[in-house]
Parts: sequence; C-alpha cells; structure tokens
Amino acid sequence: NMERLQELLSSCEPDMFKCVSLNLGNVLPDPTPSAQSLREAVADHVDRWRRNGVRGVVCSLGVDTGSAALIAALAAVGFRFHHAAGSACCMLLWLAPGECNYPPYATHTVGAAGLVVRPDTGQMLVVTEAYDRASQHWKLPGGYAHIGENISEAAIREVREETGLETEAVDGLLAFRHLHRHRWGIADLYFACLLHPLPGAAVRLEPGGEIGDYRWVDPAEYAAKPTTSQTNRLIVDAYLRQLKGSGSAIGHLDYLGRGHTKSSRFYFVDENGATTEADSQRQSGPLANGAGSG
Amino acid sequence: NMERLQELLSSCEPDMFKCVSLNLGNVLPDPTPSAQSLREAVADHVDRWRRNGVRGVVCSLGVDTGSAALIAALAAVGFRFHHAAGSACCMLLWLAPGECNYPPYATHTVGAAGLVVRPDTGQMLVVTEAYDRASQHWKLPGGYAHIGENISEAAIREVREETGLETEAVDGLLAFRHLHRHRWGIADLYFACLLHPLPGAAVRLEPGGEIGDYRWVDPAEYAAKPTTSQTNRLIVDAYLRQLKGSGSAIGHLDYLGRGHTKSSRFYFVDENGATTEADSQRQSGPLANGAGSG
Repeated sequence: NMERLQELLSSCEPDMFKCVSLNLGNVLPDPTPSAQSLREAVADHVDRWRRNGVRGVVCSLGVDTGSAALIAALAAVGFRFHHAAGSACCMLLWLAPGECNYPPYATHTVGAAGLVVRPDTGQMLVVTEAYDRASQHWKLPGGYAHIGENISEAAIREVREETGLETEAVDGLLAFRHLHRHRWGIADLYFACLLHPLPGAAVRLEPGGEIGDYRWVDPAEYAAKPTTSQTNRLIVDAYLRQLKGSGSAIGHLDYLGRGHTKSSRFYFVDENGATTEADSQRQSGPLANGAGSG
Repeated sequence: NMERLQELLSSCEPDMFKCVSLNLGNVLPDPTPSAQSLREAVADHVDRWRRNGVRGVVCSLGVDTGSAALIAALAAVGFRFHHAAGSACCMLLWLAPGECNYPPYATHTVGAAGLVVRPDTGQMLVVTEAYDRASQHWKLPGGYAHIGENISEAAIREVREETGLETEAVDGLLAFRHLHRHRWGIADLYFACLLHPLPGAAVRLEPGGEIGDYRWVDPAEYAAKPTTSQTNRLIVDAYLRQLKGSGSAIGHLDYLGRGHTKSSRFYFVDENGATTEADSQRQSGPLANGAGSG
C-alpha cells in the first residue's frame, strides 16, 4: 500500500501554473500504514516539491477508512481543505510565497424567487412556511437554485414544488439582493423573477409540504405592510416602478461559450423590456451579432 | 476519549427543524479508539436518532489525527461531506424520507471585472494574463470577489491589484453572466462594472505580477475584434448601448437587514442611471421609504 502511494506521489508533474494535482481516491485500503509513516512519506514529497519550485499541491481523496488516515497525514504537513462534497474532498498545500492564487471554491448560494402575478387581477402570490406559521411571515415563493439551473428555471421549479402552480417567466429579472456573511460565512445572491400562471393553472398545497398557507394580494398593499421584509418590499417596489415606467428590465440572452456543453446566460438592462426565453433563443435584436459565434 | 464522545452524542437535542447539530472538533486526541469501536458508537446513536424522528444530523469536525478517524467512522454509517474549508469540515446524514432539505453549501463563485473607461478619451483598459501571453487574449481586468465584498468593491480591488490603477465605480452594474458547471461542477457569476480612473491615476504593472501587458483601446473596435471573447463583447455592447440610450443601468441601494452586521446590497433597473455609492448611502429617490427601516 505504501509503495503504491509513494509511486503516485513521485509520478506527478507540475502543470502550466507550476501546481501539482493528485487523485489519491482509492490508494490506501485497510489496513492502513501507521499515522507516523504516512506523515513521513508525505513530508518527504513536500520537501521535494518545494525544492523543485512547485507552487501548490492539490490532493483529491475519498472518505473511506484509508483515505481518512491520509487526510490526517496531509493536515499534519500543512495541507488544508479546499472543498468537500458527498464522499470526496480536496486538500490544498500552497508553497509559493505570497497569497494563494489557486482558484477558490464556491463562496455563494443562489436563490430564486417568483413574483407570480395574475394578469387578470394584478394580484401577486405570497406564502408562509410550514415550519414558521407563528411568525405569519408572508413571502415570495422560492428557494435555492440547483447546479446547472438558470435563475428563471429555478424560480419556476420552486413555485411548482412549493405551491403546485405552473408558471412561465416574463420580462426578465426584476432585481436581486447580495447578502454577505450568511450561514457558514458564505454569501447569498437572491434573484426575483416576474412569473405569470399558465392558463388554467391553480395553487395546490400538499398536506405536510413546505408551505403553510398562501394568499393572492395586491402588490402595493403587500409592499406597504410593516410585516413585509425589506427585501420583499424592494422587489415589489421594483415591479411597480417597472409597470409605471418605460418597461426596462434585466433581460437575458443565452450563448454557448467555447468548450462548454451548456449555454451561459448573459444579463443586461434591456430597454425594450420583455426578453422572454423564446426571444433569447431567436437571438433577435441588437445582440444578435455577439451571440452564438464561437 | 470514547466516554466524552458518547456523552456528546447523547446530549444533543433536535432543533425546530428536527435536525441535530454536533461540534466534534476536539473530541478525540491521540491515541484514537479503534475504527470498529468508533463506527459502532456512531451507529448506535444514529439508530436512536432515527427512532426519535430526527430528520438530519450535522457534525462539524477538524482535520487532526483523531478527527480524521471520526470522518471515516461517520462515512461508514452513511454520513457524507456537506462542506469543508481550511482545517474544518462538516458532515451530514439525512434521515427523513424524501429529498434532503438541509440548506445547501455554496454553489457559485462570483467574479467581478472592471470596464475601466477614461472619460477624456473614451478608451477602455484591456489586459493579458502573464501565464497566457501566447494566446494574446485581451480581457477586462478582474477576478474573484472575496467573502464580504460587494461587486464594485471587488472590481476596484482587482483592477488595483492587477494593474496598480486606482478607480471609482460609476453608473452601477453593466451586466453579468451565469456560467454553469464550471470547475468542480460549480457555477460562476461574472459581473461587469463601469469604472473611471481616479484623477491622476496611472497603470503601473509589477514585474512578475499576474498581468502580462495592458492597452487602452476603443470600445467599439475591441468589441468587433474576432479574438475578443463573447462575454467581453457582450459587456462592451451593453456599455455602448447604455451610452447611446436612456442611460438605464443596474443601480443599487444598501440596507441593513434585521440581525445582520453588514449591509446587504439590492440591485434593480435604475431608469435614472448613475446610482453611485454615495447616492445609495443617501438613500434618495423613489426607494427611500423602503430602505434602512429595520
């Protein structure tokens, strides 16, 4: 076992940034070498990397018994967690002088909320959380965006999951909020999209679901209530100004970047308003030349 | 050691969401109990939690030798990494039926770039990376936002670190781009801000710094070049349209939410354009009623 580890540690070559990356996923089955011998083996290689001008070392490993012993050995010689998720983690040792400039891991969660407006009545949908009935905190339906999801897709999915209501996006993004040092020291970006219910769609709350109750309310009255959170009030104010004003919104356009398999979405102030999904796919308007060309 | 662990595992109470949180940071010094006895101790408590209707269990722990043994024991009974950073990690076991609804860890990096325009000439600043001289990829200066930093603060800092140029933000955000499934499966949001050099400020590249070279170029010519990346072209197009049009931008307003020590920043389409830092602190204009009130 120790030989296989030594072999792996010896074989790796620095990349163009003079960093070394190692996948130690399944190197050490039970029984593991002693903590002491693991630490010594890792320390020897760190000395060699430092002498060779390596700027940083990145090790990926799993959480089985053997890898966990390696986590301790790597930590003992100065490695720290870069990130971890599921059954894998990644540890980093920065060797170069100055600040570590290895790319950081994720620092933000992204939430998406739907400002769902009924075109017939102009009323908007607000909900209370099942676990928070006492506070009577009426808020927009929404939640965290999944990996790979666009913001309006996340808002539509969250409205569906929470209230059963099927909706579609209109007019692009209304607004967003950047909250610092949220849970675990990370930050949160919370985006609000204007949504319309699909024809014939209705709210269907599931017993035992996330949502305690729902209401259709007048936007201006909701924004004026003292119990409405600042963020929700600001979102509704932005919507009301957009209704009265020139109709400018944060529109978007999708384009496939070089080397990517999923389109990126580009957001900008759209003075014509109403950049719908279909519009952006057609890539009409002033941005047509910039999109889809490489 | 085992007694202290047993005591900790027994003492914890479910919170309002019926989840249990445990800090096992320094529970197990050397010598650690056997892997087998650790696994059994943890498995016993998981059975008890499940019987008591606990929905999820979250354990925080460090990377010293003892804690690493605990990582393996927790993994053996079904715990997985929720996240890890520095010398600490957090493992999660979801027990309730259905999808895990424990809050997710960060899923996005946030980048900020400066579109630095000289008001006297109308020219913009583009740079090449030192490690990427061959490609002659001229791009906007920028980089990852730090934890706790607003987007324009990050853009100003990155421009300073990369080029030595001191700038200030004008007119709010120009645009942003949502890139999916970037490195490690996470996503990236990249925001562009319009910046002006401070009076008398000049570019001073450091030998051996991140930036290979810089140029002041005409925005329309830069956007038209085939070597300009799509994202940079779209950003410059958004700037040129804003110059010609009504001047709408993505403005912002800072407000201190309940229970927060740092202001959140709220972004919206500002049809008057030009929401500067100072403007938002004065909280003038149509948003004054919504801001700063609790």
